[in-house]
Amino acid sequence: MTAIKMLRLDSAAVDFDKQLQARLAWDASDDLEIHKRVLDIIADVKKRGDKALLEYTNRFDGTAFKTAAELELDRAALQQAWDTLPSTQAIALQTAADRVRAYAEHQKLQSWQFTEIDGTVLGQKVTALDKAGLYVPGGKAAYPSSVLMNAIPAKVAGVGELIMVVPTPRGETNALVLAAAHVAGVDRVFTIGGAQAVAALAYGTESIPAVDKIVGPGNIYVATAKKLVFGQVGIDMIAGPSEILIICDGQTNPDWIAMDMFSQAEHDENAQAILISDDAAFLNQVEASINKLLPEMERAEIIRASLTGRGAFIKVANLSEAAQVANRIAPEHLELSVAEPEALCAQIHNAGAIFMGRFTAEALGDYCAGPNHVLPTSSTARYSSPLGVYDFQKRSSLINCSAVGAQNLGKIASVLARGESLTAHARSAEFRI
Amino acid sequence: MTAIKMLRLDSAAVDFDKQLQARLAWDASDDLEIHKRVLDIIADVKKRGDKALLEYTNRFDGTAFKTAAELELDRAALQQAWDTLPSTQAIALQTAADRVRAYAEHQKLQSWQFTEIDGTVLGQKVTALDKAGLYVPGGKAAYPSSVLMNAIPAKVAGVGELIMVVPTPRGETNALVLAAAHVAGVDRVFTIGGAQAVAALAYGTESIPAVDKIVGPGNIYVATAKKLVFGQVGIDMIAGPSEILIICDGQTNPDWIAMDMFSQAEHDENAQAILISDDAAFLNQVEASINKLLPEMERAEIIRASLTGRGAFIKVANLSEAAQVANRIAPEHLELSVAEPEALCAQIHNAGAIFMGRFTAEALGDYCAGPNHVLPTSSTARYSSPLGVYDFQKRSSLINCSAVGAQNLGKIASVLARGESLTAHARSAEFRI
Repeated sequence: MTAIKMLRLDSAAVDFDKQLQARLAWDASDDLEIHKRVLDIIADVKKRGDKALLEYTNRFDGTAFKTAAELELDRAALQQAWDTLPSTQAIALQTAADRVRAYAEHQKLQSWQFTEIDGTVLGQKVTALDKAGLYVPGGKAAYPSSVLMNAIPAKVAGVGELIMVVPTPRGETNALVLAAAHVAGVDRVFTIGGAQAVAALAYGTESIPAVDKIVGPGNIYVATAKKLVFGQVGIDMIAGPSEILIICDGQTNPDWIAMDMFSQAEHDENAQAILISDDAAFLNQVEASINKLLPEMERAEIIRASLTGRGAFIKVANLSEAAQVANRIAPEHLELSVAEPEALCAQIHNAGAIFMGRFTAEALGDYCAGPNHVLPTSSTARYSSPLGVYDFQKRSSLINCSAVGAQNLGKIASVLARGESLTAHARSAEFRI
Repeated sequence: MTAIKMLRLDSAAVDFDKQLQARLAWDASDDLEIHKRVLDIIADVKKRGDKALLEYTNRFDGTAFKTAAELELDRAALQQAWDTLPSTQAIALQTAADRVRAYAEHQKLQSWQFTEIDGTVLGQKVTALDKAGLYVPGGKAAYPSSVLMNAIPAKVAGVGELIMVVPTPRGETNALVLAAAHVAGVDRVFTIGGAQAVAALAYGTESIPAVDKIVGPGNIYVATAKKLVFGQVGIDMIAGPSEILIICDGQTNPDWIAMDMFSQAEHDENAQAILISDDAAFLNQVEASINKLLPEMERAEIIRASLTGRGAFIKVANLSEAAQVANRIAPEHLELSVAEPEALCAQIHNAGAIFMGRFTAEALGDYCAGPNHVLPTSSTARYSSPLGVYDFQKRSSLINCSAVGAQNLGKIASVLARGESLTAHARSAEFRI
């Protein structure tokens, strides 16, 4: 096996910006053929409802459902999956769920209002979505942790009904996924997947209720379908490949850092793991650890492809410069493996989740630390946030004018409306003066 | 002039749902030709920068800029627009800005963190966007109120640099718009518009800084460009036609209600004004007011087209039923013109802004009440919120594990990671135990 040589960048190089940009570049352009096929499926499910949904499900998932009623999974099946789980896994799942829930409770937005001196009341009313849909992939990519991370914030927000869809290829279900749905408090589960499941949730069929928002990961068909139904319903982000950026001062065990890089790289050949350090010798040590540990890994070939194709080591002059580079990258996961993580964290303003200190492995955040593992990728942390309770809440502005308030405000509105030549606006305000 | 006959629906009709759905339907499907032209402009500006931007600007806006430097409007021009404004308008603009700012301050999200018993710290860090772009239409659709509503939340959030673009067709500027930019604290103004301005803000050129998010209204080219650059930058919502839904118990002056409907209808022939009442006689009175007041209106033809094409009167059995219909419609603006608006408001959970009581004309909210006038349209209030300070802030999750915390969490993460066959995740956690 040939040794991995990590791509080395140096922030002192004149073309550093350009080189970094080239390494970060990720082409997420749409495949027009997939786009067209997904459009057809959506139109068909919208038009023919359950009939189309059944046909696509049986065709794509190799199932033999005869009626739409068979698509709903009994709640007893979830209970049973939970009851038969080995106790180590049950305890781990329950503990993770409890921690995710406790953290999510802090995110809950509250309504507020205030009264002005003339009696006018202004405020903001916060309500939960009526119905939300949760997409869970079937087969190999079925992650129980993903069920917890998507479902629990919705339940904490107070969503009226949380509906999960999960395909069952050749009838095969995943007991851990169903147990996670049970623990998270999912209300209904349908064994459907693909673009047809997204279409059913967006428009509703005779059997599947239409929801207000669809969240959760999926393959290219699911992601394309989510983009195409956006507007009819809300959606969460469309995730790119997973990323980790580690800033290390050279004092952490290099094996730990290598394994943290592996933990992203093992997801996918396109995953991106980058290490920044002000210590060139440390970068060599981590490279040695990578080559020492790689042969032990089950997903060694995926890790190798990810590290050689998209990984990088970046040498900087000091940690402040490291923070600047991190803000430019705006990574999904950022580890601050340094002596004083709080001081460095104060310089960070673009990152999905920040893992502070040598003991905080990113993997803890994937499962059970509490914060959500659904995070903005591909530099979108510049303007977006982790999935949270707030994604299942919405705000309505409240205005309740007193008679005196309507006079005061009416005069101002009248002047501004006439300045915009909107006479009906002006007169509507003037009527109350 | 023929009298307006409003479409009448009755919630007791067997096909009420279907009839309502038909009246609400709004086809926002993309025009493929526009899509293609906008894609070309974006690609060209991305590739050729200022050169392309200058060419498109001169071609589409009828201007004769020779260098990109001429595209930036001097801050002195904003100051001058403000200084020369008639005092009535200046006072109205300043008062509106102060009220919008005061309300926005209540929306500001704060960072938080808490420490667990084993010393592990969890939290959420809130930061402002580095740079935001504000699109302001030129010519007739240039609304100073829109500058205030988009710019002030960004400034309250603490956005580092707020960059406004506004086209100047044939060199024509709008003094009220520039004065509003001055009052709102916009940092830089460029006299560009259309898809080329959106592309410049998204990708940056030699002269125009790339931003993290683009907000503000625009024509179909601007809206299409915003959709196409989404991902590269964040965007606000893509607005559909404006809507008002009024629930009235029959005791408000029918002239007031008619004029409130006009104040939406005058925006656009596709705007939608709907009145719900439990009092059939009152619906007749409002229809009489509509026909009495219409001839006095400057935009009578637009109002007529809107009311006859998309307006409706809905008769319900009681106000609770009215609230249910309102939740189904999820209107942009909702007026509760009833004796006890608080009680009715408690039943509303889908609406962009709620105007409570007979004195609260919707027009007050458009200009100066305080809450934002950028609101979710086309039923998207089911899952989205008014534009606010939170749209210019983002969250990063914080995790800082103590040595003991890393042990406790590492064991759970290890079990769950192995359940998902992600061994590197498991080992990364186990290293810290």
